[in-house]
Amino acid sequence: MHQIDLNCDLGESFGRYTIGNDIEIMKYISSANIACGFHAGDPNVMRETVKQAVQRGVKIGAHPGFADLQGFGRREMSIQPSEAYNLIIYQIGALQAFAKIYGATIHHVKPHGALYNMAAVDSELAEALALAIFDLDSQLILYGLSGSALTNAGEKIGLQVAHEVFADRTYQPNGTLTPRSQPNALIATTEESLNQILQMIKEKRVKTVGGGYIPIKADTICIHGDGQHAVAIAKKIVQTLQQENIEIRSLG
Amino acid sequence: MHQIDLNCDLGESFGRYTIGNDIEIMKYISSANIACGFHAGDPNVMRETVKQAVQRGVKIGAHPGFADLQGFGRREMSIQPSEAYNLIIYQIGALQAFAKIYGATIHHVKPHGALYNMAAVDSELAEALALAIFDLDSQLILYGLSGSALTNAGEKIGLQVAHEVFADRTYQPNGTLTPRSQPNALIATTEESLNQILQMIKEKRVKTVGGGYIPIKADTICIHGDGQHAVAIAKKIVQTLQQENIEIRSLG
Amino acid sequence: MHQIDLNCDLGESFGRYTIGNDIEIMKYISSANIACGFHAGDPNVMRETVKQAVQRGVKIGAHPGFADLQGFGRREMSIQPSEAYNLIIYQIGALQAFAKIYGATIHHVKPHGALYNMAAVDSELAEALALAIFDLDSQLILYGLSGSALTNAGEKIGLQVAHEVFADRTYQPNGTLTPRSQPNALIATTEESLNQILQMIKEKRVKTVGGGYIPIKADTICIHGDGQHAVAIAKKIVQTLQQENIEIRSLG
Amino acid sequence: MHQIDLNCDLGESFGRYTIGNDIEIMKYISSANIACGFHAGDPNVMRETVKQAVQRGVKIGAHPGFADLQGFGRREMSIQPSEAYNLIIYQIGALQAFAKIYGATIHHVKPHGALYNMAAVDSELAEALALAIFDLDSQLILYGLSGSALTNAGEKIGLQVAHEVFADRTYQPNGTLTPRSQPNALIATTEESLNQILQMIKEKRVKTVGGGYIPIKADTICIHGDGQHAVAIAKKIVQTLQQENIEIRSLG
Repeated sequence: MHQIDLNCDLGESFGRYTIGNDIEIMKYISSANIACGFHAGDPNVMRETVKQAVQRGVKIGAHPGFADLQGFGRREMSIQPSEAYNLIIYQIGALQAFAKIYGATIHHVKPHGALYNMAAVDSELAEALALAIFDLDSQLILYGLSGSALTNAGEKIGLQVAHEVFADRTYQPNGTLTPRSQPNALIATTEESLNQILQMIKEKRVKTVGGGYIPIKADTICIHGDGQHAVAIAKKIVQTLQQENIEIRSLG
Repeated sequence: MHQIDLNCDLGESFGRYTIGNDIEIMKYISSANIACGFHAGDPNVMRETVKQAVQRGVKIGAHPGFADLQGFGRREMSIQPSEAYNLIIYQIGALQAFAKIYGATIHHVKPHGALYNMAAVDSELAEALALAIFDLDSQLILYGLSGSALTNAGEKIGLQVAHEVFADRTYQPNGTLTPRSQPNALIATTEESLNQILQMIKEKRVKTVGGGYIPIKADTICIHGDGQHAVAIAKKIVQTLQQENIEIRSLG
Repeated sequence: MHQIDLNCDLGESFGRYTIGNDIEIMKYISSANIACGFHAGDPNVMRETVKQAVQRGVKIGAHPGFADLQGFGRREMSIQPSEAYNLIIYQIGALQAFAKIYGATIHHVKPHGALYNMAAVDSELAEALALAIFDLDSQLILYGLSGSALTNAGEKIGLQVAHEVFADRTYQPNGTLTPRSQPNALIATTEESLNQILQMIKEKRVKTVGGGYIPIKADTICIHGDGQHAVAIAKKIVQTLQQENIEIRSLG
Repeated sequence: MHQIDLNCDLGESFGRYTIGNDIEIMKYISSANIACGFHAGDPNVMRETVKQAVQRGVKIGAHPGFADLQGFGRREMSIQPSEAYNLIIYQIGALQAFAKIYGATIHHVKPHGALYNMAAVDSELAEALALAIFDLDSQLILYGLSGSALTNAGEKIGLQVAHEVFADRTYQPNGTLTPRSQPNALIATTEESLNQILQMIKEKRVKTVGGGYIPIKADTICIHGDGQHAVAIAKKIVQTLQQENIEIRSLG
């Protein structure tokens, strides 16, 4: 029987600002990537999100990003590998403390936004991130773009790695995601998304924007938590996976 | 034989901005209170400071403060006790992670600046901070103003507490420090500072700005790390304590 | 014929975070208080908000607040009067620049949140704010809580002042607003809000939470831009004022 | 007679953090580039720096940078041209307000650090910055790397432009500065620096790291304000220029 992890970026609210429908979306996922206060989230939001995840048995992951709240961590920043190492040590540690007070532990780490994208193609950066995670807790699972420099770096250093695929993003022939700045970055319909997911899980391949297929490893699917239809889409994905007898469960 | 802990606020540099002479001052102290990135410090500075402390066998303490870099955490902010709880969980956790990668652990927590001062007189705030520390790791030692609401809260919840006294600050008849905004907040000469220290350790009392004496418990003395003469003063304090056969060692 | 200004806090979104329904609410107001990037707003949001206000003929006001995005500028901070002076010079200047590129000018300044509340009762702070505004542009109108230390300071220095009243907040017998932390801080029904407004405009008095009446000067009413029913309430207020032949227009 | 402007980045302190020796260095320069609170500086520092510049008759320039205090604005960030436009409108406006309260005006704008470097080679970014300056005040002088995309964009839109050269940085054969990450980025001796300056002013050319010469336009020289020997070097530069009968004066 196939199995798959469903992960979602959560805890992205900040102060009086709200993003996402965290409590609803937690019903449909197995792993939560919780923002750590740099690109989104604040200590109050982190605590509440960890608490909700623990209550629902959703695995807790750290979702560290650039210190760029205005850009939501989506703007690339040129940082040294050693700075990247320290950047995520700090953020993972902060989240670990919130997990600790609820008797929980961090299950995985998934870099956010531009940090995720840069580490997908920059080996030196990817290795710094993998090393930081390994140094801090070698049992942590590294979530990265499937088949990227980041997952490679994780595997090389001896971390368990989750190859992440996307339900609603299109793929380039080289296996990277089509940048959000391009018109065809997003998959238009839920049906197409579901097809893409099933194909990736069952056939281990994905159709690219070029029209051809490339092989892809799918350990975990990124579900979106914000947007008007996020909850409905998550529900639909879960139903489809259940109909196909694909078990939804976290890794490790 | 008397014994005393010497602590100092360290890791207060930020990015290109440097404060203090951390490496020199570490030669004279037994405990370091390391800024956690909110009122001072950044992930790079934290890592370096933790590394230096580990190398020198100086105990590592978290020094969480308000999210007010411009005000260096010295401006009072009206926050809810639950916010204060989360504020320090976050910061202690971040520092714990840096300690972890060097095989070390956090020894104590000392709130910084306005947070320290507010918690010295506000029981509700003090209890929130003590609870946070206890929830996170009940072995952590809470450093607070000697005989204050903060040390009371710590003792009440079952934490080991370090009553902190100051070498270069004057005391009010009620046992609080004279606010820095007042002209007589600081002790003018090193000699007077040394006298104050010895009196607090050996006689367990301190002369107040009113002229009278009040009893005081002295577990740890706050040494300053910045200022032109900081290192020289620290050295002088250590020499004086050694001459008086007072052992310098951390608590616990 | 009576006349009244309707003002609303706008431009409170930040990066990917959205608050309020600015474009809709602008249809009903005469003056916009635009956040200046410290407690809310960012340069992109400021530009867009200024542009929208200019297009709709809504007067542009600067809405400076504390540098506390997480607390939305609602947490009191202990700052020196000279810091407060500089704090608002900076923020007003930033907004002036956005007005300039659209050929507009700033019409008024209304301090935000905790800064507004503190300046309502702290004369020294109020005088620092009034002086900053006067030094920068003596034609600017100072919006402050009706009959407060802030409006007093403005009048004393020679600024035109707008005494602000609230449609949905209850009043204490001493003329201050009931703090939001108290259960009866908000007026429960739209009907009561409308009654309060009309009474303040036509009878120049307001009923307090104590049951009695106090005289009040009403130059401008604060309309809320966020909340589910904000637009509907704004519309209702405008309709009511029109029915009562009260002209809605900005001051000056 | 030759003439040259000497400019220096000032007002880079922040809160309790001090960088540079602003008052001393102001004796030797004709133009000050004042940090605007994003990569360095805060409202208090800005006010003080503007005040000092006005007292000494040094021309005031805005020195806007990325919102990256930790990286001191030296880390490249991927921002949209429209964001860059808004970023500098905001910062220039803030500084204009401080100039206004001292009866002064802003004389020029020089982007800082990574923003400066990126705009030197990215035409689209350069044009956004030039447009922002032109829209805000077409009399402002744009300081940019000599012969770069930034100065080109300024000239194209109709701004007066100051071609900036560096005393202590080496040049690449294509006219860009050798990146600070490279070992030969800085000129080792004061004598070499002085030779480079004189050659650029009098012969309108500079020797590159490749050994050859390239033509260069020198309207203004960047003097450094921090570093142990900054003041001594500035003094030496001024003396040398005076000996060579080169007049030090601001543009415009």
